[in-house]
Amino acid sequence: MDEQIKQNIKQLVNNSRDAIVSSIDSNSFPNMKAMFIAKHEGIHTFWFSTNVSSNRFSQWTKCPNAGLYFYDSKKIHGLMLLGHMDIFTDDKTKADFWHEGDEQYYSLGPTDPDYCIIRFTATAGEYWENGKYSLDHTLLLEI
Amino acid sequence: MDEQIKQNIKQLVNNSRDAIVSSIDSNSFPNMKAMFIAKHEGIHTFWFSTNVSSNRFSQWTKCPNAGLYFYDSKKIHGLMLLGHMDIFTDDKTKADFWHEGDEQYYSLGPTDPDYCIIRFTATAGEYWENGKYSLDHTLLLEI
Repeated sequence: MDEQIKQNIKQLVNNSRDAIVSSIDSNSFPNMKAMFIAKHEGIHTFWFSTNVSSNRFSQWTKCPNAGLYFYDSKKIHGLMLLGHMDIFTDDKTKADFWHEGDEQYYSLGPTDPDYCIIRFTATAGEYWENGKYSLDHTLLLEI
Repeated sequence: MDEQIKQNIKQLVNNSRDAIVSSIDSNSFPNMKAMFIAKHEGIHTFWFSTNVSSNRFSQWTKCPNAGLYFYDSKKIHGLMLLGHMDIFTDDKTKADFWHEGDEQYYSLGPTDPDYCIIRFTATAGEYWENGKYSLDHTLLLEI
């Protein structure tokens, strides 16, 4: 893959405050929701926080299959990542990701039982920029 | 539902040149892709064109379950619609949607066998704006 394309992919992710995150519901419909990215490592691992009481939490508990989508509508550059979600409900992980102001979402603070951290790990990807590029495991780790 | 919320939903869709469209692939992963909206009626019916040779076409042929997502990242307003895709490969429908310049995607013109029209019909929806709103069938037709 051309170095410029790799740079464009990296830039698309680094410029994104949030990702469109997909899940499969109990009726087998592909759901989507924008979620703030709490932290990410390259384009292979992303962390988010969510409510244990949310629809998405119960969907990923039943089926960990997930997707992330990043889109620059001006340049018409789009990145889809496919992978799985891991859920962390332990106090240590929750404390590590806690930020001042998170009380507005989780009123009981970092040990709020309704607060959890989810981690997306990409196993495949596709990128569009005047054509389609496939991202295999090696590229996902390299970019 | 408050009239202002209905107006905001309508505006979010009317201001969108494209939608993030979801499908389920053969490995049960929720795929996403930005697609130009060729035409829409309110928030219940949307038309797009695509390549018959595309991954999405084969995914919707096997499983018509689909989603649309519209997002205003500044206001943090998000609309998810769930429903199904119908595929039209007949010459009349294809001609009706043909526009000058579409040759760049379908080189053989409006009867190109690789060109088809897909229609999304919403059956349920969720809208986020400082909280979550469910959209039932009546609201989907009304907005």
